[in-house]
Amino acid sequence: MAVTMQISDSTIDAIKEKARRLGIYSMMSTTAAGSGHPTSCLSCEQLMAGIFFYAMKFDPRHPNSPEGDRFVLSKGHAAPILYAALAEAGVFPLSRMMTLRQFSSEMEGHPTPRVPGVDAATGSLGQGLSVGAGLAIGAKLDSSPTRVYVLLGDGELAEGQVWEAAEFAGHYKLDNLTAIADINRLGQSEPTMYQYDLEVYRRKFESEGFDVQVIDGHDVPAVLAALDHAKSVKGRPQAIVARTIKGYGVSFVAGKEGWHGKPLSKDQLATALAEVGPVPPIPPDPGKSYARTDLPKPPDFPAPAPPDYKPGASVATREAYGNALKRLAVVNPYIVAMSGDVKNSTFSEIFGEAYPDRFFEAYIAEQNMVSVGVGLGARGRVPFVDTFACFLSRAFDQVRMAAISRSFIKLCGSHCGVSIGQDGPSQMALEDIAMFRAVNGSIVLYPSDAVSAERLTEVAARADCISYIRTSRPKTPIIYSTDEKFPIPGFKVVRRSDNDRVTVIGAGVTLFEALKAADQLKGQGIAIRVIDLYCVKPLDGKALAAEIKATGGRLVTVEDHYEEGGLGEAVVTALLDVGVAPSKSKRLAVHGMPHSGTPDELLDAFGLSAPHIVDAVKEIGS
Amino acid sequence: MAVTMQISDSTIDAIKEKARRLGIYSMMSTTAAGSGHPTSCLSCEQLMAGIFFYAMKFDPRHPNSPEGDRFVLSKGHAAPILYAALAEAGVFPLSRMMTLRQFSSEMEGHPTPRVPGVDAATGSLGQGLSVGAGLAIGAKLDSSPTRVYVLLGDGELAEGQVWEAAEFAGHYKLDNLTAIADINRLGQSEPTMYQYDLEVYRRKFESEGFDVQVIDGHDVPAVLAALDHAKSVKGRPQAIVARTIKGYGVSFVAGKEGWHGKPLSKDQLATALAEVGPVPPIPPDPGKSYARTDLPKPPDFPAPAPPDYKPGASVATREAYGNALKRLAVVNPYIVAMSGDVKNSTFSEIFGEAYPDRFFEAYIAEQNMVSVGVGLGARGRVPFVDTFACFLSRAFDQVRMAAISRSFIKLCGSHCGVSIGQDGPSQMALEDIAMFRAVNGSIVLYPSDAVSAERLTEVAARADCISYIRTSRPKTPIIYSTDEKFPIPGFKVVRRSDNDRVTVIGAGVTLFEALKAADQLKGQGIAIRVIDLYCVKPLDGKALAAEIKATGGRLVTVEDHYEEGGLGEAVVTALLDVGVAPSKSKRLAVHGMPHSGTPDELLDAFGLSAPHIVDAVKEIGS
Repeated sequence: MAVTMQISDSTIDAIKEKARRLGIYSMMSTTAAGSGHPTSCLSCEQLMAGIFFYAMKFDPRHPNSPEGDRFVLSKGHAAPILYAALAEAGVFPLSRMMTLRQFSSEMEGHPTPRVPGVDAATGSLGQGLSVGAGLAIGAKLDSSPTRVYVLLGDGELAEGQVWEAAEFAGHYKLDNLTAIADINRLGQSEPTMYQYDLEVYRRKFESEGFDVQVIDGHDVPAVLAALDHAKSVKGRPQAIVARTIKGYGVSFVAGKEGWHGKPLSKDQLATALAEVGPVPPIPPDPGKSYARTDLPKPPDFPAPAPPDYKPGASVATREAYGNALKRLAVVNPYIVAMSGDVKNSTFSEIFGEAYPDRFFEAYIAEQNMVSVGVGLGARGRVPFVDTFACFLSRAFDQVRMAAISRSFIKLCGSHCGVSIGQDGPSQMALEDIAMFRAVNGSIVLYPSDAVSAERLTEVAARADCISYIRTSRPKTPIIYSTDEKFPIPGFKVVRRSDNDRVTVIGAGVTLFEALKAADQLKGQGIAIRVIDLYCVKPLDGKALAAEIKATGGRLVTVEDHYEEGGLGEAVVTALLDVGVAPSKSKRLAVHGMPHSGTPDELLDAFGLSAPHIVDAVKEIGS
Repeated sequence: MAVTMQISDSTIDAIKEKARRLGIYSMMSTTAAGSGHPTSCLSCEQLMAGIFFYAMKFDPRHPNSPEGDRFVLSKGHAAPILYAALAEAGVFPLSRMMTLRQFSSEMEGHPTPRVPGVDAATGSLGQGLSVGAGLAIGAKLDSSPTRVYVLLGDGELAEGQVWEAAEFAGHYKLDNLTAIADINRLGQSEPTMYQYDLEVYRRKFESEGFDVQVIDGHDVPAVLAALDHAKSVKGRPQAIVARTIKGYGVSFVAGKEGWHGKPLSKDQLATALAEVGPVPPIPPDPGKSYARTDLPKPPDFPAPAPPDYKPGASVATREAYGNALKRLAVVNPYIVAMSGDVKNSTFSEIFGEAYPDRFFEAYIAEQNMVSVGVGLGARGRVPFVDTFACFLSRAFDQVRMAAISRSFIKLCGSHCGVSIGQDGPSQMALEDIAMFRAVNGSIVLYPSDAVSAERLTEVAARADCISYIRTSRPKTPIIYSTDEKFPIPGFKVVRRSDNDRVTVIGAGVTLFEALKAADQLKGQGIAIRVIDLYCVKPLDGKALAAEIKATGGRLVTVEDHYEEGGLGEAVVTALLDVGVAPSKSKRLAVHGMPHSGTPDELLDAFGLSAPHIVDAVKEIGS
């Protein structure tokens, strides 16, 4: 209570006025747009005013500077009040904020990093606390005094990821992270599960090691005192659980169901504004864009030590990934890594043991891991996160949001395909190429040997986009010299002759099946071209077309993945896009539901082994 | 304590002996397989013995019968001890259990419904409590006394989905659901976050409304007393949080790190068996399969009332989905539905208002929603679950596991593509076709008008496989008569003439852009064939090829989705698979990152509008 006493009346009045204005601008901008979520803004106007104009320290000219405090609007549909707060803070003019949701405006319906002050896109709920945890860890790595504030809605507190993030923040004692929960009782379609049972939320945050305060979110002195207290807490993250009213301050919407995501009509707006008091003048927008131009890029770094494998040795690409991380870490201090409690299978433990301060065990919580990575990347770190490739499907939405966030997060998925063997289908990634190809702006890397795995990990570290590295469980022979280059896009022609009848394209374990097939066919007088498609996205269609044309347009693709959205589809559409159709083609891929067995049994049973490639070549090549 | 007193010494001794045997069989089978997780089995041998041979009532001849109690092994890597328990119970011979992980055996490395007694696949962690909640709700719908037991590991308690499930179970007061948490302290790669802090788990389950008991998981009387108490609890789910030792009973592995997922060598096994006492004789396996043949199928039902729309009216396909559910519910009492707090946007509220007892609000927790649906389906209900299509990406892993579970769950995703407009990219599904095409055995339905939306919802209700229905936000004109049939696979030729120069394939909103383009081109003397590809998977490649050949092999596809893994890739690969390559083709799809704007602005800006189709036709058709 002592803290409350120190807040002056003039400060309280100033914050109340800020809150009032933020509410007004939220209503005005959504009415102008004809869509949006004004009532979700009104419930947090005092919270937002307190966070932005009392608690946070940041330079409005450089709102994304690593020195300043950060804010993440996890309840992204309240974007208008965030834009209003940024405008009130002087980041851009209020007139620009009023271009909300227009085609030509960076003031999007939900926050994206096109908006100055926004580090990561939100709008898919339940991800903001994870992003905030990533920003908070990043600040600690930088020894920065930066504090991170995350505003959450109560609807999204049903998302398990929020509690993954809370566990993570508690475990890593992120005392520079404050979660503010706007408990307005009403979801989109009905009241939330716990409605105004704030003590449930208290217990849940306390269970995760948070300092928790429960307050009236419209009581400005209480809000400011809670923010002061949060700053004073050492050794643990803080939660402010605030009871609020959806549509606060406007009599005909306050606390009423049926108003989620609905702007006021012009007449309703006039009535509302009459209720909440005078409206400051807002000039027309001159049309100048304020879109961010300072998005972080992965820092450049000198060449790492080359891979160190003996030709003919057999090393799993997953192990090479771990070796590469350690080698890259020597020359790139920004690299950090996380694993979902499988670091001894994905081999990021090699990095973690060498650089324990830059490795964060994420435990078995893939969604949080990916979004924490997005937060770390937004502070300029180069985050590598890993788990079994199949379990990255758990975080597809988070990867999708990473793309909207313009993140350059690196994801490594091990144990792809049926070639993992006995563990069975739940552990086999057979959809991951389809998933990562569909992510906007991504690159999809699929090394076959340890040298290419190391080099492609370096490619990922340099790439200014989401990068996926697909590694395999089995050991595979080293086929490249340690100074081989792997440009993006690109592929390697591993076997070539003037008499090649068919081009066979594989990657990972299937490349070695293709090479076995080439040997068998050679004995029968049939030459084939064998391509290692180490980069599945992007593809150089023209270069691929040249190879396929050289073999009479005859093409076999073979992949340890389902046929839909995989390597085969990628190749044939890349060819069609440059106007070249294969004359005859076969796509060998997994069909049906695999089960346990040895890797060789499964590769054969699901049509990917050398004999199947031989048959396919003979079928189309004769 | 009174309950404990009533358990006889002979019962306790019998359960101890069962536990000992389950541990022995787990070690023997994994050593025979050369892989697997024996130490994860040993930590729960007393828990499993208590659950299977004291608490549960089921007919071993019909272990999946809806009358019996159910068990879900959420920590699926402990599969051997589940198989051991089922064998000890007489479901199949012990000799069969010893074929663990063999290619020819249904005793897979992680549980799948090929194994009698298993309702849903596990092995991707954190999903079992949701499946159990679905089974428990299903039992309540059936007014069945069935109780559901779910065994969880502590590693997986880091998954947010577990707490989504716990919230759900608490909210719906599932007192026929008991969660047993095997807290053995050790994850795969290191100790868990909370190690032996059992009180944290107590607080977390209690926060969700569970009755919680904390016990020593190796103390058989305590285990049995806890199971008795759980049965006595009314009005809330129960959790038994059990402190255990990974590798219990075997001195050289008990409580030791570095033993996750490692079988004992033959010598180590001999030492271990000497420690745990006499081994019952196990005959050789005669090779007979015990794979389940009683998987539930969606029940047949009479024809529902036909759709009721006026030709020329405009109705959103998402609204038609809601109308269809209500119409189907009249003739199919097994249909149930859930929504992730968007039922007023996806329109399942039409069903929910008419059939409140068959509708379950899942709140904003998509992962749990999908896995609950899998549980409901495993009891023969026909579960329809919905949210915005983009948020189904949140549950990709759960959908993947649904496929491994041989579930026929129905998923409806609304608000696909850039045509949603102002809300921006976080709310736009642009990857969902790629995602659902890659799901094994799925069908992917994409209606363009309300009549087809209703008919395709009926198709989904009858389909014995995972069914995805992609609905759109904008209203679209009714183009089909209410008695039109929509076979699977199939498509409709909406415009056709003998002079068609190019085939244009669209679906959803792009079909109407294609029709506009056809009108414009007709004015310029160019005829095109327009196809409504209402079923994107499976495809009838031959039938499609016939249409494309009739237009000189010239093809334009247009889709409100990213190009990777979408409708265009599906079509061209289906053509190539029947040996027909398009002579000239263009795939119009979304490229780059969309942003806010009106639907029409965005369809035009991202190359999907009628003028772009006109240009594409002219480019390849001249």
